[in-house]
Amino acid sequence: MSDLINHRIRRSWTEEGGAAAGLPDRAVRWLGQRIGVLGADRDRKPAAPAPVAESALTVPVRTEFEDLLGADQVLLDPAERLGRTGGLSYLDLLRARAGAAAPVPDAVLLPATPEQVQAVLELCVKHDIGVVPFGGGTSVVGGVAALRGDKSAVIVLDLVRLDELVSVDPVSRIAVLQAGVRGPEAERLLAAHGYTLGHVPQSFERATIGGFAATRSAGQASSGYGRFEDMVTGVRLATPKGEWRLGVAPASAAGPDLRQLAVGSEGALGVITEVALRVRPLPEERQYEGWIVDGWEAGAAAVRKLAQDHALADVTRLSDVDETDVSFSLNASLKTAALRGYLSLRGIRNPCLLIVGWEGDVARRRRRTSAMLRRSGAVRIGKVLGESWRHGRFSGPRQRDALLDLGVCVETLETAAYWSNLDELHDAVRAALVASLGRAIVMCHVSHAYETGASLYFTVLTARDDRDPVAQWQRAKAAASEAITGLGTISHHHAVGVDHAPYLQAEIGKLGVEVLRAAKSAVDPTGILNPGKLIG
Amino acid sequence: MSDLINHRIRRSWTEEGGAAAGLPDRAVRWLGQRIGVLGADRDRKPAAPAPVAESALTVPVRTEFEDLLGADQVLLDPAERLGRTGGLSYLDLLRARAGAAAPVPDAVLLPATPEQVQAVLELCVKHDIGVVPFGGGTSVVGGVAALRGDKSAVIVLDLVRLDELVSVDPVSRIAVLQAGVRGPEAERLLAAHGYTLGHVPQSFERATIGGFAATRSAGQASSGYGRFEDMVTGVRLATPKGEWRLGVAPASAAGPDLRQLAVGSEGALGVITEVALRVRPLPEERQYEGWIVDGWEAGAAAVRKLAQDHALADVTRLSDVDETDVSFSLNASLKTAALRGYLSLRGIRNPCLLIVGWEGDVARRRRRTSAMLRRSGAVRIGKVLGESWRHGRFSGPRQRDALLDLGVCVETLETAAYWSNLDELHDAVRAALVASLGRAIVMCHVSHAYETGASLYFTVLTARDDRDPVAQWQRAKAAASEAITGLGTISHHHAVGVDHAPYLQAEIGKLGVEVLRAAKSAVDPTGILNPGKLIG
Repeated sequence: MSDLINHRIRRSWTEEGGAAAGLPDRAVRWLGQRIGVLGADRDRKPAAPAPVAESALTVPVRTEFEDLLGADQVLLDPAERLGRTGGLSYLDLLRARAGAAAPVPDAVLLPATPEQVQAVLELCVKHDIGVVPFGGGTSVVGGVAALRGDKSAVIVLDLVRLDELVSVDPVSRIAVLQAGVRGPEAERLLAAHGYTLGHVPQSFERATIGGFAATRSAGQASSGYGRFEDMVTGVRLATPKGEWRLGVAPASAAGPDLRQLAVGSEGALGVITEVALRVRPLPEERQYEGWIVDGWEAGAAAVRKLAQDHALADVTRLSDVDETDVSFSLNASLKTAALRGYLSLRGIRNPCLLIVGWEGDVARRRRRTSAMLRRSGAVRIGKVLGESWRHGRFSGPRQRDALLDLGVCVETLETAAYWSNLDELHDAVRAALVASLGRAIVMCHVSHAYETGASLYFTVLTARDDRDPVAQWQRAKAAASEAITGLGTISHHHAVGVDHAPYLQAEIGKLGVEVLRAAKSAVDPTGILNPGKLIG
Repeated sequence: MSDLINHRIRRSWTEEGGAAAGLPDRAVRWLGQRIGVLGADRDRKPAAPAPVAESALTVPVRTEFEDLLGADQVLLDPAERLGRTGGLSYLDLLRARAGAAAPVPDAVLLPATPEQVQAVLELCVKHDIGVVPFGGGTSVVGGVAALRGDKSAVIVLDLVRLDELVSVDPVSRIAVLQAGVRGPEAERLLAAHGYTLGHVPQSFERATIGGFAATRSAGQASSGYGRFEDMVTGVRLATPKGEWRLGVAPASAAGPDLRQLAVGSEGALGVITEVALRVRPLPEERQYEGWIVDGWEAGAAAVRKLAQDHALADVTRLSDVDETDVSFSLNASLKTAALRGYLSLRGIRNPCLLIVGWEGDVARRRRRTSAMLRRSGAVRIGKVLGESWRHGRFSGPRQRDALLDLGVCVETLETAAYWSNLDELHDAVRAALVASLGRAIVMCHVSHAYETGASLYFTVLTARDDRDPVAQWQRAKAAASEAITGLGTISHHHAVGVDHAPYLQAEIGKLGVEVLRAAKSAVDPTGILNPGKLIG
């Protein structure tokens, strides 16, 4: 279940022309038992959107943009503007469903080249217009909210037309991709040359190369392929002070690594137009399988052992007891009762599911990982759960609307910490969410392990409080964020956006925020870039 | 030979009480044949140092420092101040030998704690005094030159008393070390807990944890253990705007990774006082061995294959034809003629030496690497060269003075590039050096390989032009730096300091320099931190 709802990558599936997937009756019954959801909302239609205000762009300014990009690449139509209003967090969705007002951009601009992006920024400086770079629009932290700040207007810079594979260097194994290329298209373009990025976050189907870089994305196979920033060898940015290119060598001692300042800059320090990325050969074989560990702490210790002995599988995903219970309960392809019986016979009282997956060079690596897992007391349960996880791993969006229709409050949040803090962090966040929400399903998994620590990814389901659903979630999120502060990072791969900005200072210090502000002033002295994000 | 002179880690070996190692007669003869050095300088004594100016610190200011640190921790003695004047580049050494004037600090301060470092900075802001953080003093790029800039005085902050292992977290495998801990002491402190950093640059014996972090150091085993920045999980800095701590999780999407701004900041953005570092278990076994590849391009291709297939040994060091020839000619433990005959029989016409070394888990990893090397056409020549390299790898400093005594101009420089640029970069730098210096030995090796590229480390020996030895080297260095620009980075692990500052903008852009300046203004508004370094 958690895989089905970890992320949402479309405002609604039907918006994109796909079929809205219903939830199986089994799942609805189960949810009713667990959190008391009755499906009262099932037939409620989303409210009509709030009226969209007139664009604040004056005709002369609009004409300048049209002269630059072509008249058909400057969209003022309310539906187009509304379609790039904010991201896809639970609160974004609630607002969209309620037809509540949200900041709508004054125009959507569709540049086709890095040079056009640069020219747009220069016009925006001239006319004091805020710029929201927009890729897949999948932010769950308010990263693409069309906030105007103190600017005269705000435009969304939709990078969808920056869709090219610019170059492939097969010797260095580096590919340069434009910022607007979406996950599947990036893989298709690279596969034609025999390569893959291996970057598969749950937003994969819609999110873009530029967005991955801007948010320090981490995918489901990041234990093997690395976080997105590990793949970045170079970045090309447009800024109000001119173009900025970084990355002449794999590593350097020529001062601080400014690539790592550009990566994670969330559109506030420049618009990423191209990214040079380390690619790897397409794997000839893949294998995913499920293992069971007895209890969260034993599971975390087993994963830690793999990470510290350099024996991690490319996908290494450890679910806690609650998430495992949900997986078992809702997985239609699983003979759950038989499995529970088998595990009980093996003496496993608190099963935690561990999905491990190898992409390429499977046999050699699998042998080593498997031997270590067995020594850790883990029990292999075969490929069914591994493969069913793999096939379902992007299906969350298809089910999300159905959950919302049922009246479920459903959201995810994530963090990372050093190993010695991990159990305490897991328990603290869980306790904070349960204390705030009452009867709730709170489940968690590790999705990326490092030598020194790991990520934690929480999924929360509870009955929506329709008196004030926004406040219900804001309280829970604040409680979880407070629990995280001091033990881990406020975000392992969702970024800061608007939602996490209040917690940034506790993490990087007052000086850290001041350094980011100073860097922003250097490249964006009038503050047109993504107003209100990252550093508030 | 190149191992013997890659770096110098003491102004002169005898300064530290060690024995100055002479060069074997065989080496002297060989050098004479190759570069025409006659040993005319052999008996020349270094000139007496230039007189040291009075300290510009006024008595009241000095008293404030003494009240803070204790009178014996504020050194005004000319010898103490002279002993912390600049680093250990060839030009530094020439100057010291000639007794030429160089900027001497007005005092040497010896704080014992991060809090004292912080308090010193506050006094320096108050009295407008420049601060040069000083660890091992091994910079070869002017990174610790006691430049005053526009300040009223300049002090050296010698961090030697920050010598503690602060904590060890065996679960997360993180150790916190203070900035003044030198390489061998760090290993000794960690070994008591069963851990190692595995960071062994040639400056290891003298350089410090703070210096490693400030310069993005890379060691001889960095293909296995990673560059120093790969080990850093957290940093504590003192800055004029207060303390700054970074690093709450192994990785984060909470904005840009500011750790990567602190690492490589060369004392210009703060004084690093403590570093949290990922440690690894002490290896139970080590093995070093030599292989021979036929020609530089085949060797680079073999190393690239290892890097891209994740089969690198921990130490992976490929010498070019010239460096290999020097190694063969001067290695006393080698039956050189027999080896050359054997290689000729194997059809190897342009032998390039590849040293590979494993630390821990040797058998399993060695099997895989060896099989791949054999498939690349490499020939194993056993442990002699590997072990002799390992035993000699810190001996350079012991031989350097003897080379200078012989009248040799000896210096190193290094860069890194993507694989597709590597051969061109190698040839271009070599050609630039030879064109500038005439009859010279120019040799090169790869010391760190990445999936996307590798480092290149050049060692140059030529007869010193005693009419103007400074200009002789400056011309050659400028020619090499021009050759590097556009193809690779101006430094893979020596940092920027003063010497590389003119080339930084070409690498990170005008905006990059402006961002660094802005960051500096945020933490050091009056510019007291390491004046003239990094951003000039």
